[in-house]
Amino acid sequence: MRFDDEPFISDSNRYRASIIEVKVTITPVILSGGGGTRLWPMSTPDRPKQFQALTSDHTMFQLTVLRVMDRSRFDAPIIVANAAHADLVEEQLAAIGVSDATLILEPCARNTAPAIALAALAVQQPNVTLLVMPSDHVIKDTAAFDAATTALLPLVEDGWLATYGISPTGAETGYGYIKMDEAELTAAVRKVNRFVEKPDSERAQQMIAGGDHVWNGGIFLFRADIYLQILSGHAPEMLAQSKQAMDGATRLGARITPDHDAFAACPSDSIDYAVMEKADRVAVAPVHMGWSDVGSWDSLHEIGEKDTAGNVLSGAVRVHGATGNLVYSDGARISVHGIDNLIVVANGTEILIMPRGTSQKVRDFAKD
Amino acid sequence: MRFDDEPFISDSNRYRASIIEVKVTITPVILSGGGGTRLWPMSTPDRPKQFQALTSDHTMFQLTVLRVMDRSRFDAPIIVANAAHADLVEEQLAAIGVSDATLILEPCARNTAPAIALAALAVQQPNVTLLVMPSDHVIKDTAAFDAATTALLPLVEDGWLATYGISPTGAETGYGYIKMDEAELTAAVRKVNRFVEKPDSERAQQMIAGGDHVWNGGIFLFRADIYLQILSGHAPEMLAQSKQAMDGATRLGARITPDHDAFAACPSDSIDYAVMEKADRVAVAPVHMGWSDVGSWDSLHEIGEKDTAGNVLSGAVRVHGATGNLVYSDGARISVHGIDNLIVVANGTEILIMPRGTSQKVRDFAKD
Repeated sequence: MRFDDEPFISDSNRYRASIIEVKVTITPVILSGGGGTRLWPMSTPDRPKQFQALTSDHTMFQLTVLRVMDRSRFDAPIIVANAAHADLVEEQLAAIGVSDATLILEPCARNTAPAIALAALAVQQPNVTLLVMPSDHVIKDTAAFDAATTALLPLVEDGWLATYGISPTGAETGYGYIKMDEAELTAAVRKVNRFVEKPDSERAQQMIAGGDHVWNGGIFLFRADIYLQILSGHAPEMLAQSKQAMDGATRLGARITPDHDAFAACPSDSIDYAVMEKADRVAVAPVHMGWSDVGSWDSLHEIGEKDTAGNVLSGAVRVHGATGNLVYSDGARISVHGIDNLIVVANGTEILIMPRGTSQKVRDFAKD
Repeated sequence: MRFDDEPFISDSNRYRASIIEVKVTITPVILSGGGGTRLWPMSTPDRPKQFQALTSDHTMFQLTVLRVMDRSRFDAPIIVANAAHADLVEEQLAAIGVSDATLILEPCARNTAPAIALAALAVQQPNVTLLVMPSDHVIKDTAAFDAATTALLPLVEDGWLATYGISPTGAETGYGYIKMDEAELTAAVRKVNRFVEKPDSERAQQMIAGGDHVWNGGIFLFRADIYLQILSGHAPEMLAQSKQAMDGATRLGARITPDHDAFAACPSDSIDYAVMEKADRVAVAPVHMGWSDVGSWDSLHEIGEKDTAGNVLSGAVRVHGATGNLVYSDGARISVHGIDNLIVVANGTEILIMPRGTSQKVRDFAKD
């Protein structure tokens, strides 16, 4: 069985999931350090996109936390966030009734591998399984996501690192890819052959045509001890500095602030480079789960709910005779007439207007 | 000599003007009662377009006052305005250093004929010449305007009503037209044959082709006593109620507020219908003077100063690879990339976006 052919969990898998729940709980690690500019003007350093309600009434950070709310299956989450966002994180957790989260507040940004090391070091019990998720992705089909987790768990218990392979919907050049071995390791899981960097258009088309590549969605499942073990072999300095940062951490209620100087001295690297590409036993569950990294205004139009004229509208917006637009406002009322295929965003004192399909150009504006 | 062929005043006319200045001064009457919605969201009942700096650093009201600042030629102006705008009028006068204006504050709107009647009744001296101007028009070539006034003055002194005939630049259907007699009354002045209501497109093209029609710009020159005399013949009730309103007026400093009940009982009518079309001796000076009634966002693009890509920009606006747009902001920063021929307006908490050429559709939004 391949999940990319059948997005919803089957009854037999539901049964397997319920068996496993009794044996293993999972500690979610939610990475919230990002502060990109691709959704400017909504996304700003003070309030990056994960803290914005761009895709539903909840923010993407809240949606990520809500995805792992079942306490029979998931332990309380660990949030690794920029220290500057601590209050924002706590407000957004409180708004969805979550009071058991641990916050690890990064005193500086050191990319994902050290961030996850902090979380792995923070868990006290032996043999804890971590589900590592970016806080700014959308997953529409959470049942498919849960089913993939269920399929991966036995291998993870056995010491494998696991990742979720997003079944491609096009020859995207903006994502990393994962080449899978042909044979299944277990039902719905395959061995990672290798990780592939963001390709050019031609290479992307070849990979899609081949059928043996999936997108690297940046979501991972592994045992904390295995992760730290691989770090000790391949990135010992990173592990040492992360340990020192946690040993010297300030703890205040649910907030853990690692030591600044120790963490600042930690090499900065992504989990992909520092760990996943170095490890031998890496599994991938290819999955159709309505995933998006919400990496641009164009992607918000793609995943958004459209009116009969193909407009995706959010906030105080009036549309007359206009088709295919994305119109977002956080306050001001936007009235549009007779325009097609535009992106219009009003946020505070900034207004952005550009054609759909060109939303990468937003960086030119976000810099100033 | 025809002014529509030669926009700038000739030396011989300058000489004539200087002779006339000694004999006659003119009292400007500036009509500021309008509160239209065609420039929504900038134009609102609280602050209609004449009080907005849409075409220069000055508002159109201020530009109108500045047009008649030469006190050797013009007496202190009379402003007829909505009572609700009294403070706004005084602020905008003070900002350009005008302290000698009289304000007639209409307790309710009764169209232009009664508004001008109030001004005609307010002037104390006999034989005063009134130059009646809407406060929300733009005249780029004030020398041509002044020359037309100079050309009209002898006939006005002789008891004629006079109007400024805007030389048409296209078969506009949004303006009233004036059919002129063929023969000149004096240099640069012709007799009005008749006033023509806003035509359909075919009729407009016929009139333009004929060459004997000009646009009715709503600017008038006549003696106050003649105006009141014609009212007494053709609109005696209007004259009576206006008189009663002025007899019962409240006077406070430069502010005159006519009696509400008397003015409310006054018939509402335009100067065109109530006076100009009824009179026999009506003169028109056809003139090219860069006139616009700034009646739409499209007209603001037409008259606005364009960058090399044909964009008319005002306020905090950033434009990358965009052509032929009108982008106006009164506060928020607007960043546009790759859009063409759009109207974009941000005012307070309202944002309007529509293609150029469709700006009449703004009424649909302004209603709500």
